[in-house]
Amino acid sequence: MQPDLPKGFGIGITQANFKYKDRPDLGVIFSEQPCVYAALFTRNSFAAAPVQIDRQILKNGNTVRAIVGNAGQANACTGDTGLKNCKAIQEQTANLLGIKSEEVLLISTGVIGALFDMAKWEKALPDALADLGRQDAKGFTSAIRTTDAFLKYAAKTLEFAGGEVRLAVMAKGAGMICPNMATMLCVCITDVKVDRDVWQKMFNDAADRTFNRVSVDGDTSTNDSIIGLANGMSGVELDSRDENIFKEALIRILAEVAYKLVQDGEGASRVLNITVNGALTPQDAKLAARAIANSQLVKTAIYGGDANWGRIINAVGYSGAMVEPTLTSLKLCGIERFRAGQPVNDDLEEQLAQKLKERDIQIDLDLGMGSDSYNMLASDLGHEYVTLNSDYRS
Amino acid sequence: MQPDLPKGFGIGITQANFKYKDRPDLGVIFSEQPCVYAALFTRNSFAAAPVQIDRQILKNGNTVRAIVGNAGQANACTGDTGLKNCKAIQEQTANLLGIKSEEVLLISTGVIGALFDMAKWEKALPDALADLGRQDAKGFTSAIRTTDAFLKYAAKTLEFAGGEVRLAVMAKGAGMICPNMATMLCVCITDVKVDRDVWQKMFNDAADRTFNRVSVDGDTSTNDSIIGLANGMSGVELDSRDENIFKEALIRILAEVAYKLVQDGEGASRVLNITVNGALTPQDAKLAARAIANSQLVKTAIYGGDANWGRIINAVGYSGAMVEPTLTSLKLCGIERFRAGQPVNDDLEEQLAQKLKERDIQIDLDLGMGSDSYNMLASDLGHEYVTLNSDYRS
Repeated sequence: MQPDLPKGFGIGITQANFKYKDRPDLGVIFSEQPCVYAALFTRNSFAAAPVQIDRQILKNGNTVRAIVGNAGQANACTGDTGLKNCKAIQEQTANLLGIKSEEVLLISTGVIGALFDMAKWEKALPDALADLGRQDAKGFTSAIRTTDAFLKYAAKTLEFAGGEVRLAVMAKGAGMICPNMATMLCVCITDVKVDRDVWQKMFNDAADRTFNRVSVDGDTSTNDSIIGLANGMSGVELDSRDENIFKEALIRILAEVAYKLVQDGEGASRVLNITVNGALTPQDAKLAARAIANSQLVKTAIYGGDANWGRIINAVGYSGAMVEPTLTSLKLCGIERFRAGQPVNDDLEEQLAQKLKERDIQIDLDLGMGSDSYNMLASDLGHEYVTLNSDYRS
Repeated sequence: MQPDLPKGFGIGITQANFKYKDRPDLGVIFSEQPCVYAALFTRNSFAAAPVQIDRQILKNGNTVRAIVGNAGQANACTGDTGLKNCKAIQEQTANLLGIKSEEVLLISTGVIGALFDMAKWEKALPDALADLGRQDAKGFTSAIRTTDAFLKYAAKTLEFAGGEVRLAVMAKGAGMICPNMATMLCVCITDVKVDRDVWQKMFNDAADRTFNRVSVDGDTSTNDSIIGLANGMSGVELDSRDENIFKEALIRILAEVAYKLVQDGEGASRVLNITVNGALTPQDAKLAARAIANSQLVKTAIYGGDANWGRIINAVGYSGAMVEPTLTSLKLCGIERFRAGQPVNDDLEEQLAQKLKERDIQIDLDLGMGSDSYNMLASDLGHEYVTLNSDYRS
């Protein structure tokens, strides 16, 4: 049985047949009470119409009541028509729920450049709203799924002196995933009582520590959105100590879902856990970690179970991070293979090959130049990725 | 029959069995007269030992007489031992040829982090030098080949008032190719009489217009070297008009070999010809072109023959280039699909699908913001790439 959603939230889903058949592709999350709203969006210059809409609502600083999500069409690169269609969906939803248009957020994923079939939307929306009694986080993720091999959601209940607080996270993402958020949709809902400013800051920090540190293919999409809604219906307000506890729980639950995203990187068989230490600046640490996470040659070597650590060093070398070969050291799966500019432990190659069969691959780089660190999760790159992305118009 | 090499150059090859069996893996190019020497090297911080050696010779500004190349080991990430081995190879070559150590350049390609087997080198070098009578550009490329599916070389004879000038280019590269030169070795030899400064400038410009604009997988390697030697033995000096003619020929011959590199991008079936126009600055044009050239999602779509132009726009959107969606337009295979922020010509999809079956795929982006341009060549990304790079320790 799934855990209950945070208090006052309901979910409805339906089959609109936008692109996929015989499965839900339209989902709505509704809150009985207005929610404070925090969000992070893609930095892609061609931000999709729903992203433009949600960003404007965030800027206005109003509370929201509902999120409408769909799979099949991204409503990106659709110009004025795309925006007009968003507004029509907001209005219809608002009318049916008795709320205001600007209280309705939209998230979309699917093919770029395809226009919505508004007749399908008009027909399907009332069905989704009629279904709103569900306490079904899993159901919502099934409605925003594209090439996902499995559904990503998580829920958690926290006990505070003031009472119980619940958190639920529902996400979508498999291809086009990269730092700065790429075809990744994530909604986090909670019934904690929190100020908007505190919520946005907490949420930004948590996303930066989790979702912004995953990479599948280095592409960042037009539609990425990570949205946090807090409706306060638990009645629990947090003091500063409890706030820290809550924030840690938020980071853990987002990290859990972010890990699932990488694990489901299209065709991925392994998760690369990359840690860079000893960087001269935080930026250097990030550059080195990202170059490793996005290197096709590193990803294919890991996919093939090949302990070809030279490709990792190679990626660090072109990352733009400040490095000094004689100070750099690298461990692969806990075994040091490069130190002081030279290979070490050549005789442990066989042992290393065994470790490379595991799902989690540890890559620990020490630049030996300072004290800054960064960590990332990345998927490997296998035949399935090519098959999925050459066959499927996503 | 192969065209003759430029005057005064000879080539020798042999089987040293460094890693590959039953094929040449050691090659030498020798010039009877000292050559003015121009070169560009990888910007990777972990530059291989041979790159460090050649860079120092370039810095000293001396003339050179020979290039020794090998396949199988990259001699990168090998520390002091790697440098010591380079010096031993230079010395042995110099002794056998009766020239100076610092007149011997080295190029290596293969596995990173593996140390040379110096016994094999000592045994094989005399054989390669005994073979120096060859006029065999093809033979030299076969000795520096790794995963190359075919050999890359080209030759050209130019007629000037002062006489005949010859050019020959021998290159290697299939995987790990990216702008800023990655596991790509290229040697260009000529018998023109030219000043060192003129030669280096001409050569840099030509490489920037050709080799620096190709991408297979976005990885830049520890060993990339592009080396130009001019020994003056044609006796032909160029006036400024002839110099321009020679430079255009140099660009054309390097472009021809660069195209072959992309065509042979590991597992590649198509060549993407990317042109960006209308950029606000040269840097914006370059950023947009590189993001398209390096996008896994664009490359897999093209591999699959899928006219998924949204992925191209998406890549432009995260490229960091200054873009304004309503000013941007995109043609794929000559058919406009995106203009003024919206899709156009949806009805030409079938026609476009037909064009995507061809080997050369034109991608023309107009940012509509200024007058700067950039162009690039890139390979697609298919199953063969994954197979080659997950199975082969290169």
